[in-house]
Amino acid sequence: MQPVHGGNLAWAAAIAGCDSEAILDFSASINPLGPPQSAIAAIQSAISQLSSYPDPNYSELRTALAQVHQLSPEWILPGNGSADLLTWAGWDLSELAATYLVTPAFGDYWRALKAFGAKVVECPLRAGVGSRELGAGDKGDKGDKGDKGDMEAGEQFTIPLTPHSSLLAPPNSGLLLNNPHNPTGWLWRREEILPYLEQFALVVVDEAFMDFLPPAAEQSLIPLVQKYPNLVILRSLTKFYSLPGLRLGYAIAHPERLNCWLARRDPWAVNTLAVAAVIAVLQDSQFQQQTWAWLPPTRSRLEQELSQIPGLQPLPGAANFLLVESERPSSKLQQQLLKHERILIRDCLSFPELGDRYFRVAVRSTTENERLIKALWQITT
Amino acid sequence: MQPVHGGNLAWAAAIAGCDSEAILDFSASINPLGPPQSAIAAIQSAISQLSSYPDPNYSELRTALAQVHQLSPEWILPGNGSADLLTWAGWDLSELAATYLVTPAFGDYWRALKAFGAKVVECPLRAGVGSRELGAGDKGDKGDKGDKGDMEAGEQFTIPLTPHSSLLAPPNSGLLLNNPHNPTGWLWRREEILPYLEQFALVVVDEAFMDFLPPAAEQSLIPLVQKYPNLVILRSLTKFYSLPGLRLGYAIAHPERLNCWLARRDPWAVNTLAVAAVIAVLQDSQFQQQTWAWLPPTRSRLEQELSQIPGLQPLPGAANFLLVESERPSSKLQQQLLKHERILIRDCLSFPELGDRYFRVAVRSTTENERLIKALWQITT
Repeated sequence: MQPVHGGNLAWAAAIAGCDSEAILDFSASINPLGPPQSAIAAIQSAISQLSSYPDPNYSELRTALAQVHQLSPEWILPGNGSADLLTWAGWDLSELAATYLVTPAFGDYWRALKAFGAKVVECPLRAGVGSRELGAGDKGDKGDKGDKGDMEAGEQFTIPLTPHSSLLAPPNSGLLLNNPHNPTGWLWRREEILPYLEQFALVVVDEAFMDFLPPAAEQSLIPLVQKYPNLVILRSLTKFYSLPGLRLGYAIAHPERLNCWLARRDPWAVNTLAVAAVIAVLQDSQFQQQTWAWLPPTRSRLEQELSQIPGLQPLPGAANFLLVESERPSSKLQQQLLKHERILIRDCLSFPELGDRYFRVAVRSTTENERLIKALWQITT
Repeated sequence: MQPVHGGNLAWAAAIAGCDSEAILDFSASINPLGPPQSAIAAIQSAISQLSSYPDPNYSELRTALAQVHQLSPEWILPGNGSADLLTWAGWDLSELAATYLVTPAFGDYWRALKAFGAKVVECPLRAGVGSRELGAGDKGDKGDKGDKGDMEAGEQFTIPLTPHSSLLAPPNSGLLLNNPHNPTGWLWRREEILPYLEQFALVVVDEAFMDFLPPAAEQSLIPLVQKYPNLVILRSLTKFYSLPGLRLGYAIAHPERLNCWLARRDPWAVNTLAVAAVIAVLQDSQFQQQTWAWLPPTRSRLEQELSQIPGLQPLPGAANFLLVESERPSSKLQQQLLKHERILIRDCLSFPELGDRYFRVAVRSTTENERLIKALWQITT
């Protein structure tokens, strides 16, 4: 069965006819510079603590995370990956009259919203002043969609609510989006989201990829959290520090809300090795600086090289991945890359707005990116 | 704040004025023989896989667990500790008219039932044919409770529903219990639970300590799960293999029910190192045999030595812990043991039926048990 998330190496290995380890994975957007040595050392030394339960208050972990964001620890709740915390955000959203979901949306948003029966209103992401919808051709059965057209590189995205004044500030509604947006890579400026904090009963912003932006460029809403009790920010440590197998994420929100989540979920959600790794990597400014220095030029080069391949059109993106429009069906490209090159790209079939016309690739090391480019040239020409 | 679970070393260390590592922990019921070397080796070698997401289907893990229980993998759902799976069991129970909860009950049952608004009917565990309630004196404000009295060692427990025919088979109700029972250590025979499977819409049996019983003595309901779609069994790997910091447990139930849980929870609930550890320890029959050989004589000796201390009366127990009735307030004993000996016992304040008249201790190594006994003699005499 076609996976609905990137990084499913067991599935890919079965198609490629090799071990999982042999797959070059462009489908999960993980920092290729990691995991940092600081994390590995911390994990190694915490193995001796596994016979004890984790501190259910996670005091040391919360304090370490809080210091980074200049908050008090009670504003932070660590979780078993940000997907764990998304579950409880989904519950809060389900208690509202409706949740406005910016689409195409990360598949796990649907899971968390459906789990608790949230009423979802899709808000298709649009490009440019003409409000043309991203990949609208795949969803032509959906009523009033405005003028449609293909996405073009370099166009401006806007949160789609703006032109529909009737959708603004619906009573008792929530908004769920990620910034930078996955899978397009679009980054909203803080000021663009600000009006929605005034209008929606609850705004959940998944900033899973925000740490890939250097401090001078990032647009996190964390500085606003103490002003807006209706704001929930989800952060992941998985992607930047290249530890998706360890499961670590956190929510930043008003302490009253986080205490409600704590009362619902199990007491030991974060494992001891993840705790140790997080505390270590938060201090690892060398790894952070390396990543911020590596990403922009490497992403630019990958984007440029992809754009030179006939039939492919990468979209500009602010995160560590690129969405690529493809004239050939992306699921076919995916199969060919797997079978011939053991390279896994992320098809977009699980995003109905995108379907077979797009795929997503992580930005990896220059050598690995070159392998992808070479393979794509061979397949497409 | 007094912790509601055992094993809170951060809290204990603050009272004892030492590092967490210096605490001799009798409050969490963890196998002192572990973790097995097989687990540590598996964790070490899986660290290199942390840059990949876990397989969201957990195929290899489910297959390994299924083989142990002679089931198909779709009857198994691994979780981030059994507490994670209890959350979803709590949801299913909340959809029934009421949940009958055998008390004193593990505190996390209350969390999982309250989280989703389950209606809870308490079923106090009673001792002997006289149906005397365990520690009933602490709950004198609770209306009709039958004849009351102190628990005496060697008495027979029965599931309290039996004498109350009006409580039997209430329409559309659930039953939640653990076997062996925590904190009393009581073990129900399979045949004693069987009638409730016929009567209740859903029976959730937490068998977190069942693996401490050797195959010839264990009373797991797993062999019945394919016959009863209304049966959910929760198992922990944390306690037997001494890895509570790693978080690993699993549910055994009808595949339809587990698929519902899968659709609700996040896709990567179990971390990669836990997966590797489980697959390794399931094969470690040497560690299993060692544990089964160690426990019965060590527990008997500890029970006997506790019973010789004036004012203390241990209850017989089938698991790796003992509940002890104490003439002195157990919270006071706990404080003295911590401050003078850096030994942590589990007070029973979080079990309102038991309160300050009981404490619980894990069975640890002979040397460690002697340290506890010596300290208790010094304090109580």
